[in-house]
Amino acid sequence: MIVVMRPGASEEQIQEVCQRLEAAGYKAAISRGVERVVVGAIGILDEPTRQMLMEQLLVLPFVEQVIRVTKPYKLVSSDWKKERTKVAVRDFLIGGDEVIVMAGPCAVESREQLLQTAYAVKEAGADVLRGGAYKPRTSPHSFQGLGEVGLELLREASEITGLPIITEVLDVRDLERVISVADIIQVGARSMQNFALLRELGKTDKPVLLKRGISATIEEWLQAAEYIMLEGNINVMLCERGIRTFETYTRNTLDLSAVAAAKELTHLPIIVDPSHATGRWSLVTPLSLAAVAAGADGLLIEVHPEPSKALSDGPQSLTPERFAALMEKLEPIAEAVERKLRKGGGVKGA
Amino acid sequence: MIVVMRPGASEEQIQEVCQRLEAAGYKAAISRGVERVVVGAIGILDEPTRQMLMEQLLVLPFVEQVIRVTKPYKLVSSDWKKERTKVAVRDFLIGGDEVIVMAGPCAVESREQLLQTAYAVKEAGADVLRGGAYKPRTSPHSFQGLGEVGLELLREASEITGLPIITEVLDVRDLERVISVADIIQVGARSMQNFALLRELGKTDKPVLLKRGISATIEEWLQAAEYIMLEGNINVMLCERGIRTFETYTRNTLDLSAVAAAKELTHLPIIVDPSHATGRWSLVTPLSLAAVAAGADGLLIEVHPEPSKALSDGPQSLTPERFAALMEKLEPIAEAVERKLRKGGGVKGA
Amino acid sequence: MIVVMRPGASEEQIQEVCQRLEAAGYKAAISRGVERVVVGAIGILDEPTRQMLMEQLLVLPFVEQVIRVTKPYKLVSSDWKKERTKVAVRDFLIGGDEVIVMAGPCAVESREQLLQTAYAVKEAGADVLRGGAYKPRTSPHSFQGLGEVGLELLREASEITGLPIITEVLDVRDLERVISVADIIQVGARSMQNFALLRELGKTDKPVLLKRGISATIEEWLQAAEYIMLEGNINVMLCERGIRTFETYTRNTLDLSAVAAAKELTHLPIIVDPSHATGRWSLVTPLSLAAVAAGADGLLIEVHPEPSKALSDGPQSLTPERFAALMEKLEPIAEAVERKLRKGGGVKGA
Amino acid sequence: MIVVMRPGASEEQIQEVCQRLEAAGYKAAISRGVERVVVGAIGILDEPTRQMLMEQLLVLPFVEQVIRVTKPYKLVSSDWKKERTKVAVRDFLIGGDEVIVMAGPCAVESREQLLQTAYAVKEAGADVLRGGAYKPRTSPHSFQGLGEVGLELLREASEITGLPIITEVLDVRDLERVISVADIIQVGARSMQNFALLRELGKTDKPVLLKRGISATIEEWLQAAEYIMLEGNINVMLCERGIRTFETYTRNTLDLSAVAAAKELTHLPIIVDPSHATGRWSLVTPLSLAAVAAGADGLLIEVHPEPSKALSDGPQSLTPERFAALMEKLEPIAEAVERKLRKGGGVKGA
Repeated sequence: MIVVMRPGASEEQIQEVCQRLEAAGYKAAISRGVERVVVGAIGILDEPTRQMLMEQLLVLPFVEQVIRVTKPYKLVSSDWKKERTKVAVRDFLIGGDEVIVMAGPCAVESREQLLQTAYAVKEAGADVLRGGAYKPRTSPHSFQGLGEVGLELLREASEITGLPIITEVLDVRDLERVISVADIIQVGARSMQNFALLRELGKTDKPVLLKRGISATIEEWLQAAEYIMLEGNINVMLCERGIRTFETYTRNTLDLSAVAAAKELTHLPIIVDPSHATGRWSLVTPLSLAAVAAGADGLLIEVHPEPSKALSDGPQSLTPERFAALMEKLEPIAEAVERKLRKGGGVKGA
Repeated sequence: MIVVMRPGASEEQIQEVCQRLEAAGYKAAISRGVERVVVGAIGILDEPTRQMLMEQLLVLPFVEQVIRVTKPYKLVSSDWKKERTKVAVRDFLIGGDEVIVMAGPCAVESREQLLQTAYAVKEAGADVLRGGAYKPRTSPHSFQGLGEVGLELLREASEITGLPIITEVLDVRDLERVISVADIIQVGARSMQNFALLRELGKTDKPVLLKRGISATIEEWLQAAEYIMLEGNINVMLCERGIRTFETYTRNTLDLSAVAAAKELTHLPIIVDPSHATGRWSLVTPLSLAAVAAGADGLLIEVHPEPSKALSDGPQSLTPERFAALMEKLEPIAEAVERKLRKGGGVKGA
Repeated sequence: MIVVMRPGASEEQIQEVCQRLEAAGYKAAISRGVERVVVGAIGILDEPTRQMLMEQLLVLPFVEQVIRVTKPYKLVSSDWKKERTKVAVRDFLIGGDEVIVMAGPCAVESREQLLQTAYAVKEAGADVLRGGAYKPRTSPHSFQGLGEVGLELLREASEITGLPIITEVLDVRDLERVISVADIIQVGARSMQNFALLRELGKTDKPVLLKRGISATIEEWLQAAEYIMLEGNINVMLCERGIRTFETYTRNTLDLSAVAAAKELTHLPIIVDPSHATGRWSLVTPLSLAAVAAGADGLLIEVHPEPSKALSDGPQSLTPERFAALMEKLEPIAEAVERKLRKGGGVKGA
Repeated sequence: MIVVMRPGASEEQIQEVCQRLEAAGYKAAISRGVERVVVGAIGILDEPTRQMLMEQLLVLPFVEQVIRVTKPYKLVSSDWKKERTKVAVRDFLIGGDEVIVMAGPCAVESREQLLQTAYAVKEAGADVLRGGAYKPRTSPHSFQGLGEVGLELLREASEITGLPIITEVLDVRDLERVISVADIIQVGARSMQNFALLRELGKTDKPVLLKRGISATIEEWLQAAEYIMLEGNINVMLCERGIRTFETYTRNTLDLSAVAAAKELTHLPIIVDPSHATGRWSLVTPLSLAAVAAGADGLLIEVHPEPSKALSDGPQSLTPERFAALMEKLEPIAEAVERKLRKGGGVKGA
């Protein structure tokens, strides 16, 4: 249930609605738009109680509408919050007019590899440095990431280049440590339904990038985001990274319809990861252009100084040169959809 | 096996290569590029014969290279023909610099519905009129199309508006009749592996738009195209129209990676059908922009004057107004990837 | 709409119902059960006409019930016909108490290969000889079957061994020729929605085995069967042969839930093809046992005297010895679900 | 790399092999079969070192063979351990001649519901009581399980009925608590790649039932099991519970080929969960029979006293009566594949 307040409703009136919802057994969540305040009722009541409460709320003069929400997510929904959410990362926003690019190696392998890549992507205009310290690997016999050492290297790379950091957390017990380094926490596809982890992230106010599970429906993905928002963290971004289908030519199947759909269904920023989606560097550029044309608010791209020597995901990594060329092609596409490529790193590096 | 002739090889020398291939048991297929002629050897020989022939060809002074092709398609491959194929439809080309738009109703329902839509899409700049006379329907209890009557209406709509026609053939026994009306023959997703039909289409020189099967891999799709080309028809276009996955929010999952991949693997033009792929009109516009950004040579879009009354596929049809708005948004995207939206209908209608 | 007649309704009364249905615009289809006759109304009427007709029929004293059918298939449904359909092939029935086994090579390759296999499977107890003369092959460069020559070899093998023949038809123009040889016509997975072919098969009374399309839902499969039945042919069998999923260890994913579901939803016999489904001979035996335990009425199994030399599908073919061992294991499973393995070939060969 | 010792190799000789492997950089894992001991080399070495070591080992007189393992799992593989693993749960074994049945409600809802179900499934012959205290739910607005209270109810139900308990752990921080109650720990499909959790489970010796992820390949599933075994816990059971496909009639698609394949590829017991796989109670019985026919070592079945009132998964739950009827049908199937239905609960309850 969502309660839409009339324009100009006072703080007291909003609180009265919240109290009534809570008295009936709901949890209340307030969304303050430019014109209106909307209060979401979280929880499940028996039908007669819900019905009665709905009628009582409707007679209040400062309530404009009471909407029954049948979707299994509420706070994530564009019904609850009309304005698009903009997530602040240091001095810029994700989800606004600017298209943001996050780039870097799949895994942090060494100080040299990380710094070399960080300088290169910054120069080409990337806004955020990506790099995995804890790597979720299908086989226990594969390289599992540098762990804490990797985190320290990321901290250093950020200090030197000024780029904010996005990195993945796998284990709820590592969360504090990862938060101390990361500007954005990445929840990987395999962890999309690690509900314990989502709840802990919800208790922080750190920006979270929630990757879609490899076979998650759009609705399941949005419900996973709801787990985070329900604990109070509104800084959630969605990331489409390809779904598992029968097609084997590409590593996964990038679902750009999900990007356009998520923009309709939610108010959250949407990022696209064409590197994991395609698994082939030669497809990363056309799919990046397509993603921005479809409405993506940003990209997450793997760049490696020597893809053939990468400890993971080499075949899908761009060289720094190819990444720079991609950035140039992105600019006119962003403008064609009336946005602007931020190119933060490049500008600040100048 | 593909035989690359040296630049400047004479017609006689080319014929000599063909004769040697045919003497050994292959069928020879010639591709004449700007700089070089390439001869494809079609068929399967036992290994020693193949080996010996390969060595004999390599010693000929006018043969530059002999390449073993391990892909299961040959004539379709960009290995065999480097230049992109441009398919001529009346006075324009598909697969060149211009982006082409084909639009119209899913099914021809009546004279009024067809003409009304034809005028509207022409005015908005569509290049080709689409409309189904023979409809492949999952249930025998659903509307099956107007058949011959529908074909005659398409002929009339073309005469009145000057738009070329694309329409589907389902039954090999209807082929002659459909060819007499259509400028482009559509092979639907359900017929992608109707090999008897593909072979008959290969014996004509009519442009063919081959839709990808609902669960066909990229490789299977290209092999289906090979069935047509192998009979001699080179006017083949591929059409990505969404694949079947677990996701149910969209009707199918549009696979734009397949568009970028097909551009690498083949020399054929690629068209995208965002209407069938998404099944939701509100997603048609962002996915059309994305398709062109990914490299598509054209779009196939459902437009219906009153989508809510359509006998098939209403929910995914654009109104004429929304189609016109889409055309306006397409223009800057085409330019951002250094192409041009043709907008043939609009120009000729002026 | 389905009209259930009271027990003992006369032929005249049945005809009266049919006439009323047809006068209103439906086509009538009669199903004569042991206790009751049920008349199906095929077609689509506007809602008020349908409503009025329903009420008029309900007041007739010899009509017990009028049921609105919302499923997209009617004649195929177990709502329309309660008793299970038994399809007669020469002197035995498929769909009754006995479990039937059809076995043989994927493709007819030579007289020797076919006869050798035919003798072997007959001796092991197979009831029907399978073998493809027209082969649907993904690549035009692969072996396409022996065609008419293959059909003649099948005819001879049947004459010599006494085994009935099942073989596939691909092209509607070959139908007459195939019918003259085959006891059961196979519609392959790629042709499941070749509606022209289904309609032609519906005009005959030849038993048809309709394979499920590689990515067809159960509902689409049943609607394809409805195309055949609607033309008047009631001798339809369904065949589950694996669906396309993300799993690559097996060629396809055998969907035995679909077998159990189809037994609930329809009255048609269900056959299972574990050879195409798994693509690995070592999995054919356990999956055959599972299929019969799940309720399958029969199996379709690839047997080849020398699998490693087969021109198609070698890796999934059983040797005659392994096939004989499978038949022995099947017997107690059939009995455990209160059926009997027919073992027709063996008995008759004795 | 796997080192196969000659029959009769002494303990010293085995230790020598281990030391050589460890000196080179591998971790050694010993598997003691009835006839032979096999030593697995875990880890990755550079190619020349591996090659040299292999040659050195081969010349040892007590080494029979050195096998290069290219599969991404080793300890899980039937190459490393030929005999089938039997997991002891109280006084019986899973993976031996007996077929085991685990049954109970999806979620523990109340003392009454749990005890009523526990008595019923015990009487019908179930060997283990299942019931979720921590429930992984797609929506945060759904019932999340009773948590610790649910665990205490499970402990009580076990004490009263004598049935061992299987229950799921979601959060690595709950592991100790769950282990104190459970005889078998269930890792749900959503947690199959929660590597932190798998590693912690590997450090215990508690039997683990590892469900296949909803879109995990067989190979990924086996690698997840390898994460557990690699830490030292050999009491691992695999559980097939349906994969996500395009089919929507069933909740998931039960992949019985994966059961037969896993029996070939590994030495671990395989359990099948037909309730989650089909999502329809009417399909649970035929699929249970099929699972045992395909080689499953046990079943995991949802039973609820009043399915229509269940807080989760009602439509797929059997009533106690239907469960008892299933147990009766299972018995002859188990015998048909030369096994025995254990029916432990029933016997002990007598």
